[in-house]
This record gives sequence, C-alpha cells and structure tokens, in this order.
Amino acid sequence: MKKVTLLSPGPTPVPQRVLLAMAQPLIHHRAPDFAGIFQKVRDGLKMVYETKSEVLVYSSSGTGAMESAVVNLLSPGDKAIFVNGGKFGERWGSLLRAYGCQPLEIKVPWGYAADPAQAAALLAQDPSIKAVYVQALETSTGVEHPVEELARVCRKSNALLVVDAVSCLAATRLPMDAWGIDVMVGGSQKALMLPPGLAFVGIGPRALPVMKESRLPKFYFSWDKEIKNQRENKGAFTSAVSMFFGLIDVFEMLREYGMDKVYAETALRARAFGAAMEAWGLKSYARQNPSPALTAVECPSGIDGEAVVKWLRGKYGIFIAGGQDEAKGRIFRVAHMGYITEFDTLQAVSAIEMALHGLGYDFNMGSGVAAAQQVFGED
Amino acid sequence: MKKVTLLSPGPTPVPQRVLLAMAQPLIHHRAPDFAGIFQKVRDGLKMVYETKSEVLVYSSSGTGAMESAVVNLLSPGDKAIFVNGGKFGERWGSLLRAYGCQPLEIKVPWGYAADPAQAAALLAQDPSIKAVYVQALETSTGVEHPVEELARVCRKSNALLVVDAVSCLAATRLPMDAWGIDVMVGGSQKALMLPPGLAFVGIGPRALPVMKESRLPKFYFSWDKEIKNQRENKGAFTSAVSMFFGLIDVFEMLREYGMDKVYAETALRARAFGAAMEAWGLKSYARQNPSPALTAVECPSGIDGEAVVKWLRGKYGIFIAGGQDEAKGRIFRVAHMGYITEFDTLQAVSAIEMALHGLGYDFNMGSGVAAAQQVFGED
Repeated sequence: MKKVTLLSPGPTPVPQRVLLAMAQPLIHHRAPDFAGIFQKVRDGLKMVYETKSEVLVYSSSGTGAMESAVVNLLSPGDKAIFVNGGKFGERWGSLLRAYGCQPLEIKVPWGYAADPAQAAALLAQDPSIKAVYVQALETSTGVEHPVEELARVCRKSNALLVVDAVSCLAATRLPMDAWGIDVMVGGSQKALMLPPGLAFVGIGPRALPVMKESRLPKFYFSWDKEIKNQRENKGAFTSAVSMFFGLIDVFEMLREYGMDKVYAETALRARAFGAAMEAWGLKSYARQNPSPALTAVECPSGIDGEAVVKWLRGKYGIFIAGGQDEAKGRIFRVAHMGYITEFDTLQAVSAIEMALHGLGYDFNMGSGVAAAQQVFGED
Repeated sequence: MKKVTLLSPGPTPVPQRVLLAMAQPLIHHRAPDFAGIFQKVRDGLKMVYETKSEVLVYSSSGTGAMESAVVNLLSPGDKAIFVNGGKFGERWGSLLRAYGCQPLEIKVPWGYAADPAQAAALLAQDPSIKAVYVQALETSTGVEHPVEELARVCRKSNALLVVDAVSCLAATRLPMDAWGIDVMVGGSQKALMLPPGLAFVGIGPRALPVMKESRLPKFYFSWDKEIKNQRENKGAFTSAVSMFFGLIDVFEMLREYGMDKVYAETALRARAFGAAMEAWGLKSYARQNPSPALTAVECPSGIDGEAVVKWLRGKYGIFIAGGQDEAKGRIFRVAHMGYITEFDTLQAVSAIEMALHGLGYDFNMGSGVAAAQQVFGED
C-alpha cells in the first residue's frame, strides 16, 4: 500500500491532531461557546499577519478573498495596477475586468519578479490609480514579488497595496503592519496546515476609508458586514465550525513551535532541496527571488514535467504539482511549507531522482539526496 | 461531563463515520484521483435534487450560493419578485438591492406561507419580471412555502423560480425536475449531515439561456466558469477536499438507507415532537405549512424563548435555536432533520419539559415525553 504524501504547493499535509480536532462534535455557530473559538481564531490570525488590524475569515477558497479585495475597494471604472507574472497575477486582471475596473498591467515574464520602479513610475504619472494588486508568491512560478518595496512605493502615493499571500502566509514572514501592507489575503490550505475551505483578509487602516467609498456591488464578500460581525466574534453568515476547531489547534502548534523557527525551517528545506537540484544539474524556474515556500524545477530538455508528476503519484503516492499554462510540461513544483519535515523533503528528492532516472535523464543517482542531507546535517 | 447534542436547525450532528472520513489524509484537488471523488459528489447531489441538471458545488456558506442565483441570472435594473416571510426571505431582498436590481416584495407575515396567486397576479401584470426568489423552508419561522405551486405559476410565465432549499434539502422531498424548479440552492450543514462550508446550486434548463444574458458582475460565483470545470469533475478554484471526502460518505449512507425512509423518519420525528408540543398546550409558530425539518415552538406568555435555549445549553449541553428579529424571545426552534434519532427527539422533548418547568410554566411533567413516545410506538 502507498502512503499519501502531499508535497504540492497546496493543499499541504494536515497534522493528525488537527484532523482529529476538526472531527470533534460540532457546536452551534451562534452559541456563546463559539464566540471564544472565534476570538482565538482572530488572535491567531493577527499573530501570523503581525498586525493590529482586523483579519476577516471567509468560507471560500483564496480566490473569494481576492475578489473581496476588489469589490470592497473599487468603484466601476477605477484604475488599478496589477502585477502579472503568472497564473495568479493574471487572476487579479480577470477580477478587475469582471467588475468593470480599468486594470493597468505590469507584465512580468514568467519566472521573474516585478520591478517596484515600474509601479512607482505608473503611480507618479497617474494619481487617480486606486490600488496595486500583487502576489507575495506567484505560485505558478515560485517567484516572490518584492512586497516590502512595493509597500514603500504605494505609501508615497494614494494607492493601496493589496497582497495575495495565499500560498506563502506562515511560510515566509510578511509583517503586515511593519511593512505597511494595506490588504493581505490568505488561505487555509497552505502553510496554515488545514484543508482548503477558509480564506482570510487583513484590512489595514489606510484601506478602511477607501472601503467606505467603494461602489462595486457586494454582499457575501462585504467587508463592512463582516467587520461589524467578526469584531463581536461571529460571522455574518454560518461559520465553518469544524475548520475553526482545526484552526485554533494550528495556532497553538505555531505558537508552541515559534513562528521564527517555522520560517527558518521552511527556508532550510528549500535550501536542501535547492542543493539537490544543483547536484542534478538543474535550475529553478524562478530566475529571480525564488520562494522558500516552494521550488519550481525546470526540467532537463527531453523530460516532460507532467511525466515526473505522474511518476511520483502513480508509483509512490506522492503528490507534487506540474506547471500551468506556458510552464506546463516544462517544470514541476515541490512545496517546502507547512507540516513537512526534512525527511519529507528527502523523500521528495529521492522520488524525483528515481523518476528522472526512469525517464532517461543522465545524472549521478543519489547525488541529490547526498547534497540535501549535507545541508540538513550542517544545520 | 456534558455530551454535546446538536438539535439546532443547522449545523446538525455529523455522523462519526463522516467526521472520520473527513479526517483522511488530503490528496491534491487537481490529481486524477480527485476527479473520481468529484464525480461521486455530482452524482450524489443529482440523486438528492432528483435532477438531471448540473448541481454545482461552492466553497461558501449557503448565502454565497444564494448570491450566485442573483448575479448569474439578472442584469442591473432587472425586476424580480422575492417572498419575504422571515429572515431568509429578507436576505433575497438585500441581495437584489445590493446588486442594483428592482425587488418586488411579496410580504408574508412571519409564521405564514406565500400565496402563489399573489405571485401569479404580479407575473401576469408585468411580463418583464425575470425571476421569483423564495425559500422552500423559511428557517426563521419553520414555514414551508408552496414551492410546487410556485413552480407551476412560474412555468406559465417568463419568470424563473429560484428556491433556497438550504435548510430542508434531504429533509423533505424537493424533486427539482418533476416540480420544474429552475434553480435550487442547498447547503452542507443541514440534512446533508456535514459541517458548514459547502453550498450547492442546481441549475435547470430554463435557467441556462437566462444565465447567458445576465450582465451582473461575478467571478468567484460565476456559474459559467464552474459549469465548464465541474462537468470535467474539477472546481474552477481549489475544492474543499476534506468536505468532499465527507460528502461521498454521506451519499453512501443516504443511498443505503433510502431517501424515502429518510424523509419518512424526519416527518415522524416532527409528528412526535408536535404531539409533545400539543401535550404541553403549546402551538407551532408556523400557522401554515409547518415543516417537518424543524419546529418553531411559540413560548407560553411570560416565558422567554432565549431562556429556554440557554437552559438547554447551560444545563445539558443541548443546542437548540431561539428566534430571530421579531420572533426573538417568542419562540425556540428544534430540528428534526439529518443525523437525529427518535431518542434525540425524546431527549429534546424531555429537556424542554424540564426547562419549561424550571422557568415556571404550569403543565404536566412527562406529558410531552409520553405523547411523543406514543407516536414513535405506533410507527
């Protein structure tokens, strides 16, 4: 029998104690008992976001919370910059267009990071631009965009910085208040070690007056409604009670372990995996700012990325991800974030070695495992 | 120690086998293995909906799927009738207003059912009316609206019938195709015996061309996007994998047991509870069409409904629901749907007797339990 090993950049493995916490008998979401749970969830989110502002919880995928960051800030015809460096950057553009806003695209080649100077120039040219939408980690390429610098640029203008941090929240540090991020979107199924189903949105002080002026229609994703309710520790609509049970357990684990250690170990796994990749003679698809949360490996010529993914799933029950759109077949992606240990990473390295070997790539079997062990051993 | 006993009209108790099914290790939502699971979920939904049409799954609360039934059918300024007989009827109105449509209200006093003739008259007067929005069960009052008759009325006009069946799907029979319901919304946390987090929307053949003409903005809740994806057994966005695990287990249970038996036993529990209520000398708040899914009990004068709710929760760990808005304090609500047995109902009856007694209501202790047992014993 195969063990399911989840090493895709979301969903990530859920610790058994969290799965069991979610298997507790449900209570009613309007009962006072649930308010205490809601409060703990809010406190935990503020810890991870490093913010004093409200972080709202939605029952939705991350895309729902992204949509909330459009419909609660803009009005029809409003101009907004979006960074398009991959599949998820594209999604900001689709959202802006779907709601009749004017998207100004900063097109970045896949595998590269946005240049803050380009945003600064656009903002200087046109002070009517309302916001800049960007990914902290573009999941499709493994690239981190320079969020801290973009925040600095936005604070010199009228524009808000809206960051999609779904795929790296709790994997890499994103101190919302210290960096001056105005709005930050997160999801449950990545480094927060939960199943998919919850999304989060932190709303900073510069975003609140903008929200009040927004005239795009909204109901389920209305921030105003949720802020009023969630400040009183309840959702405007039925909360996903079981996920809340799991989430307070996750925050307990993160607190006990310490966020610094979580970030350091995520980075260590990424370094170890990177050393293996180098030993194979392969390169990261991310030419700039590769994220520690996941590595997108560029396949050797003649090897199909999808075949590597299939090999791992079919032969070993290991789930990694392939490439999307223009990167399809050219890369495979392995996560280092969340409930993953050095031995999970070594297992990934080992499985990939066997797959590459089986698919006919010429390299020294075992060289990647040795290189990764070397990094872990030095820690 | 108290046992948690959930007898509120959602969330309802989740069977332990379902909780454990949801506690399985996650797999990747884009892996071929997940497509088989998605297919089973689609088949199960079609069984419960009694439809050949597509039933979409959303990660959201029921309100999200309600919103989808507005933004995918209407355009700005469109006229739509909504039946307002309680808290959830009101929500249709709020949704229509939030999206700049023209809501035509059929106001029904709380505790009463809509009159189909009123809808027929409005539709005859104005053929530009696009849809009629109604609840199958108005959860706040325990009243069933006459969905079958309303469907007949709508089919004689251009208007679609959109039914919010969140709180009674799988508790009372709602054969979408046989009755000619155009759109029907459901949720996971009621008679489908799952935690909150998933919502469903069945889309009949008359709704599809209307959807194509709709110009309200949408993205996360776009039917078009989801129909394309879900027909290929995947979500447009990340699916709530664990909930899907639970849902296929629920459908297995429902299939093994048989839907007819599920409906019959729900009705039996409601009759038994009703007999107890009568023995206490109390009345249903639903003056017309009381639903078998839940009973809203009108409190005797001098007894606060909220006090009954608190008594049960505080002394026995039993969660029932109070009244909302104008019914607050005047009623308490007990569910009969989902994973509830005759002994759960008897426990509710017994606990309410002790609460009413403790709060000073004068009646024969045990009379309700005896009356309910009588009904169960005759079955």
